[in-house]
Amino acid sequence: MRFSFDLTDDLLFEEGKFLMIGGPCAVEDAEQTISTAKYLKKLGIPVLRGGAFKPRTSPDSFQGLGLNGLEILRQAKEETGMAIVTELMDTADLKELMSVSDIIQIGSRNCQNFPMLRKVGKAGKPVLLKRGFGNTIDEFLNAAKYITREGNNKVILVERGIRTFETSTRFTLEISAVPVIQERVDLPVIVDPSHPAGIARYVAPLSRASVAVGADGLMIEVHPDPPRAKSDSQQQLDFNQFKSLKDEIDRLLPVCNRIYL
Amino acid sequence: MRFSFDLTDDLLFEEGKFLMIGGPCAVEDAEQTISTAKYLKKLGIPVLRGGAFKPRTSPDSFQGLGLNGLEILRQAKEETGMAIVTELMDTADLKELMSVSDIIQIGSRNCQNFPMLRKVGKAGKPVLLKRGFGNTIDEFLNAAKYITREGNNKVILVERGIRTFETSTRFTLEISAVPVIQERVDLPVIVDPSHPAGIARYVAPLSRASVAVGADGLMIEVHPDPPRAKSDSQQQLDFNQFKSLKDEIDRLLPVCNRIYL
Amino acid sequence: MRFSFDLTDDLLFEEGKFLMIGGPCAVEDAEQTISTAKYLKKLGIPVLRGGAFKPRTSPDSFQGLGLNGLEILRQAKEETGMAIVTELMDTADLKELMSVSDIIQIGSRNCQNFPMLRKVGKAGKPVLLKRGFGNTIDEFLNAAKYITREGNNKVILVERGIRTFETSTRFTLEISAVPVIQERVDLPVIVDPSHPAGIARYVAPLSRASVAVGADGLMIEVHPDPPRAKSDSQQQLDFNQFKSLKDEIDRLLPVCNRIYL
Amino acid sequence: MRFSFDLTDDLLFEEGKFLMIGGPCAVEDAEQTISTAKYLKKLGIPVLRGGAFKPRTSPDSFQGLGLNGLEILRQAKEETGMAIVTELMDTADLKELMSVSDIIQIGSRNCQNFPMLRKVGKAGKPVLLKRGFGNTIDEFLNAAKYITREGNNKVILVERGIRTFETSTRFTLEISAVPVIQERVDLPVIVDPSHPAGIARYVAPLSRASVAVGADGLMIEVHPDPPRAKSDSQQQLDFNQFKSLKDEIDRLLPVCNRIYL
Repeated sequence: MRFSFDLTDDLLFEEGKFLMIGGPCAVEDAEQTISTAKYLKKLGIPVLRGGAFKPRTSPDSFQGLGLNGLEILRQAKEETGMAIVTELMDTADLKELMSVSDIIQIGSRNCQNFPMLRKVGKAGKPVLLKRGFGNTIDEFLNAAKYITREGNNKVILVERGIRTFETSTRFTLEISAVPVIQERVDLPVIVDPSHPAGIARYVAPLSRASVAVGADGLMIEVHPDPPRAKSDSQQQLDFNQFKSLKDEIDRLLPVCNRIYL
Repeated sequence: MRFSFDLTDDLLFEEGKFLMIGGPCAVEDAEQTISTAKYLKKLGIPVLRGGAFKPRTSPDSFQGLGLNGLEILRQAKEETGMAIVTELMDTADLKELMSVSDIIQIGSRNCQNFPMLRKVGKAGKPVLLKRGFGNTIDEFLNAAKYITREGNNKVILVERGIRTFETSTRFTLEISAVPVIQERVDLPVIVDPSHPAGIARYVAPLSRASVAVGADGLMIEVHPDPPRAKSDSQQQLDFNQFKSLKDEIDRLLPVCNRIYL
Repeated sequence: MRFSFDLTDDLLFEEGKFLMIGGPCAVEDAEQTISTAKYLKKLGIPVLRGGAFKPRTSPDSFQGLGLNGLEILRQAKEETGMAIVTELMDTADLKELMSVSDIIQIGSRNCQNFPMLRKVGKAGKPVLLKRGFGNTIDEFLNAAKYITREGNNKVILVERGIRTFETSTRFTLEISAVPVIQERVDLPVIVDPSHPAGIARYVAPLSRASVAVGADGLMIEVHPDPPRAKSDSQQQLDFNQFKSLKDEIDRLLPVCNRIYL
Repeated sequence: MRFSFDLTDDLLFEEGKFLMIGGPCAVEDAEQTISTAKYLKKLGIPVLRGGAFKPRTSPDSFQGLGLNGLEILRQAKEETGMAIVTELMDTADLKELMSVSDIIQIGSRNCQNFPMLRKVGKAGKPVLLKRGFGNTIDEFLNAAKYITREGNNKVILVERGIRTFETSTRFTLEISAVPVIQERVDLPVIVDPSHPAGIARYVAPLSRASVAVGADGLMIEVHPDPPRAKSDSQQQLDFNQFKSLKDEIDRLLPVCNRIYL
């Protein structure tokens, strides 16, 4: 078995299981986050994503609610029982973040933030590590090694698209990274189709491709009202779009030797 | 219906159909080509690929059998009834090539060879146009327009990987090109997973991803004895590997709303 | 000495000499081309560029004047005594083109058009080979080998920018290609700063960088009235801009161990 | 005047001045660092670089001497009077680092580490910000804005190469970034030719190109015995190579309207 570890007391992630993570790009308010969580819970999605600290290209953009965002995630967790994953941007926030988040997300821009990798390695909780969009697979796996060297093997690797010359999508999903990584390390590899797509209508086909290529899960941005989202408004799915995609995955999984976690 | 046109008298390619093309990178001899054709025919593959003229990076590499290669393809066609697709490298060979080939292939390196595009446009036969590995989708679709402007709408577009910084595969399959192109033009889009993979064991996962993303077909390199192949020996599938991949596609297609052409 | 060969009876291009090529992107009419030629001649520029056959991304764009364009180049040559370089797009035009052009240009999109490379190799005239924007240096040098294998060593290599993720310029000038290529082959390497710049005001700094890095020459687009140009209007220099750039090169050359050819 | 600010009490960096920074990739021991500093000082180089904390792709590689490295830099500063620039990897080390380093370096992998950018912005000392190798110019300038928003305008921007498909050099020096950035922001732009080169013999031509393109300075890796260096051994210059490059820059600067700071 390629991997097997607990995400929470109730969630054992092991080879053959397919991990679905959904939720808004950013936690914007309690209503937006909790309504999304409830909808996803109803569809059986076990893990809620949502950014409290947002790494934005420009300092003029919405930077997330910070500690207030964590509080809203805590509430969503209590109301739905979902596990939480949220991004760590500053290791000074690690303790606060761990009090809410079951899985610690390292974003694409911190993929080679080595002191941060060591600290989350030592913290012991499961880590969701996103590939840097300028990083080779080799660099990505070396980054993961900074975490596992600290004795923490609960690492979920996320392919989320790389920088190329093509501009019709936001990034280029490197679908081949999934089998390449799976043969090199014994860690789960999931795909974030939302960021490479950049546009909501490409999320479904990229998700299907990810299931079929053999990914161990998906992490998808979902928002109750995408056009009003404070970040990534073009690429977030609304509830109906997500439901329709979920139906497609339902049909694909049995053919792809995976069952939902 | 996004597209519908005849490849041969017997093969109507229309939306919903999934086109399988298989065969060796290069025609090396009659035995190699015809045994491959017979094997593929037995599995129901309707179109045989095989290069008589080979565009090789170095002039020191095997350059293909030329007209003798065309002769072998003619023989394979007679013995199996398969349709033939082979690459045109020099428009001076167009007439000879058309006497054998049902579909004219324009290779990645000639994607923006505009006089060639115009000439195959005028020739009227179906054209299989590969994306240049340095070309954007926008350039690729403009290249196709050079063909369709001549009144020839029988154009099959092939995504075959682009150049990126990642080196663990030969090229980076841009899987998102499939839905992007399908929404922009009414032409079939198929995937060549062999060239981006560069290594045989990645061909199956990339093929599955292509089916699931919604591609209209696949073009796969198959060789009776890949380690002895005179070109692309790392990436060609042997018969067993191809059979096993075919089985996987058999299971995926019904879920993906496609039936074999 | 790294290289030494005749471009024309009067022009010996050898190591230490700096080759300046200037002229419009496309030959648009006699007035535009000849006025440019006369201006450049006055500044001592020995070679005139100008496209009669234009490889345009879209079939809707201006495609060049074709044979009429060659006629205008012949006239410019007669009136100024400048040597001519113009691009070959279809080998069917080779004979006509050679009757006017002293140097045969192979464009970026034909860098791996191997039959064309062989034919210009056999033709014997000096060849100006542009790097394909999606080609590695290794592929570029192998392309040159297709020409030299035919016994033609009069090959000028042109770095003209590659495809990258950066969009603030049209292509990314790979300035390091100059020293890399110079150590691998005994052929002159010149730079086309106009295409990577894409914008006129970046042409001067990229030209200076090219001189200083050790390039053997420059090929620059110049037009009497760039805003009215039928192609590449953003990147062509007007006469004053070119004069000012020429003055800068005048000062740099002595420091860079080069003298004008 | 595009920019003007103090690096130290003695060093005013303003437009027209050319800033030379030299020193080893990593501080390895006192002898190695101080001998290099003395050599550079003798040549008039005002700023010494040297990494105490090293961001290495693999956790198995030499990670720097940490606080002991800072101590050695302090000693080098006392013995030579040179200003010091060294990289911050963890904001927890900021106070210690500022007690020695006159300029705080943010490495390529932390270009979008926004909390770090804010903290060095608040710290007030000059910041040397390297472009992320996967970042566009637009992202790079937005990263700088995270620093300047805190009221710190003493930011030196460093072009150090980006990721492309070309593998003959370690990264691709994007030489056009220099004029592009200079027209967009009023900050100095210097070039690190060592990292894109990856190989010592390409450092000189890339340095010359950088001077000629109009850069405001250079940052070059120098080591007393490169083959024995614990990191970047291929790309560091030995003393003679650096001296020879310095001589070339001496000749270029007057032609490029710059005088040494």
